[in-house]
Amino acid sequence: MANLIRITHCDDPAIAPYRNVRERDLAGRQKLFVAEGTVVLNVLLTSGRHAVHSLFLLENRLAGLADLLAKVPDGVPVYVADRTIMDEVAGFPIHRGVLALGYRETGQTAPAFPAGRSLVMGLVGIANHDNMGSLFRNAAAFGVDAILMDETCCDPLYRKAIRVSVGAALKLPSMTIGPASEMIARLRAEAYTIYATSPSAGLVLEDAPRAERVALLFGAEGDGLPDDILTETDGLRIGMAADFDSLNVAAASAIALHHFRKTAD
Amino acid sequence: MANLIRITHCDDPAIAPYRNVRERDLAGRQKLFVAEGTVVLNVLLTSGRHAVHSLFLLENRLAGLADLLAKVPDGVPVYVADRTIMDEVAGFPIHRGVLALGYRETGQTAPAFPAGRSLVMGLVGIANHDNMGSLFRNAAAFGVDAILMDETCCDPLYRKAIRVSVGAALKLPSMTIGPASEMIARLRAEAYTIYATSPSAGLVLEDAPRAERVALLFGAEGDGLPDDILTETDGLRIGMAADFDSLNVAAASAIALHHFRKTAD
Repeated sequence: MANLIRITHCDDPAIAPYRNVRERDLAGRQKLFVAEGTVVLNVLLTSGRHAVHSLFLLENRLAGLADLLAKVPDGVPVYVADRTIMDEVAGFPIHRGVLALGYRETGQTAPAFPAGRSLVMGLVGIANHDNMGSLFRNAAAFGVDAILMDETCCDPLYRKAIRVSVGAALKLPSMTIGPASEMIARLRAEAYTIYATSPSAGLVLEDAPRAERVALLFGAEGDGLPDDILTETDGLRIGMAADFDSLNVAAASAIALHHFRKTAD
Repeated sequence: MANLIRITHCDDPAIAPYRNVRERDLAGRQKLFVAEGTVVLNVLLTSGRHAVHSLFLLENRLAGLADLLAKVPDGVPVYVADRTIMDEVAGFPIHRGVLALGYRETGQTAPAFPAGRSLVMGLVGIANHDNMGSLFRNAAAFGVDAILMDETCCDPLYRKAIRVSVGAALKLPSMTIGPASEMIARLRAEAYTIYATSPSAGLVLEDAPRAERVALLFGAEGDGLPDDILTETDGLRIGMAADFDSLNVAAASAIALHHFRKTAD
């Protein structure tokens, strides 16, 4: 039975963590992340990876959210308000009327590499939250076991990245791992075959052997992966038109992850 | 030699077509589209598909744009202003300081199907400009000859769609073709093998024969392609994880177009 708490004042301290959720500066919320919409909230409540701080729902959405409310752990408050209060607190119109806060994991020191067959995605310098969310979504669709990010990547638990990932950012094991060289060292130690995607690589995707343990590295659009990574790893190219060899990093990941996917068809 | 015209007043009628370019309502601009950024502008100036109305550049960008200016056809005005005037006219900050207007094609009645080997993309109900731009970008990367859109698709010449397409929307032959049934009829008349992408299809992508003439159909995320299209065509499925079978339509197009691509590797 969900613990419903009606909010009748914008300045109720109970909902202070929901103030101005649109702002990029999440000062004071570093331990929390914002999940929005029923699809994302469903992943948050079912994946079990993150503890749930609270929910904040529009009162006229309640009737349609019975399935979701049944999954809310005991003791987690579900704040309910009308549209005026919700939009005022959030700082912009929350059209779908479904918000939640979750706790970030802390103290993570080692990525969880599975034994045996495994597919890992490594990201270097991905600074755009849309791309980050799409990369996570594609990774989830093709059975990626873990995502490693170098220290220059943006935050996959930023609100928009979570939304674009359709919740995959809350589900897939992921870890920021210092400089990219550290990422390579860890993958080597775990016996991964490391492919660095690059338009200038000699090896074309279809000819790349599907090894038992594969790590696929993607760099930022424009810059691509740094030269030292390209020289230390096997390059991999996606064949494209000579006069328009331009692919978004998320599109490139979809194609390459699909090739190496672990999923049954 | 580009025809530079310095603008010193926000209300100069010469730049009236650039007013409030961010607004979705392009009332009064129906015959024109807005191109922004050097990459897109370069496609506009080199593809030759659309006549150029004018350019509108930030004065401190001029020195770095010599290559671009050399491609501007004789007689096309290049308006130049400082940042205050440009942002005021455009209605929002034009960070990169590079805008242009082009003329839409009019009176198009038949898509240009090439003879022989051909790859066509058909879109049904794509209503999101980001997705539309990404679909065009992927189509250009994999050698698509023409794009057909049903009447419920959004405008690929909307400013943001053009930008996300990295100019592909200004380059690839495309046409809105009435209801989807009309699209199917035209493709059949041109002897295309028509594949409708759908998560519920029996045929998996890798097993789909690469026919001489292939048309790939994509529907909107969520709804997918309408049932009558799925029953009239060959279904095609992209293998995904059982517990996260969710792929953005642009990502799906990247994978499927890559499989059927006409480009040399």
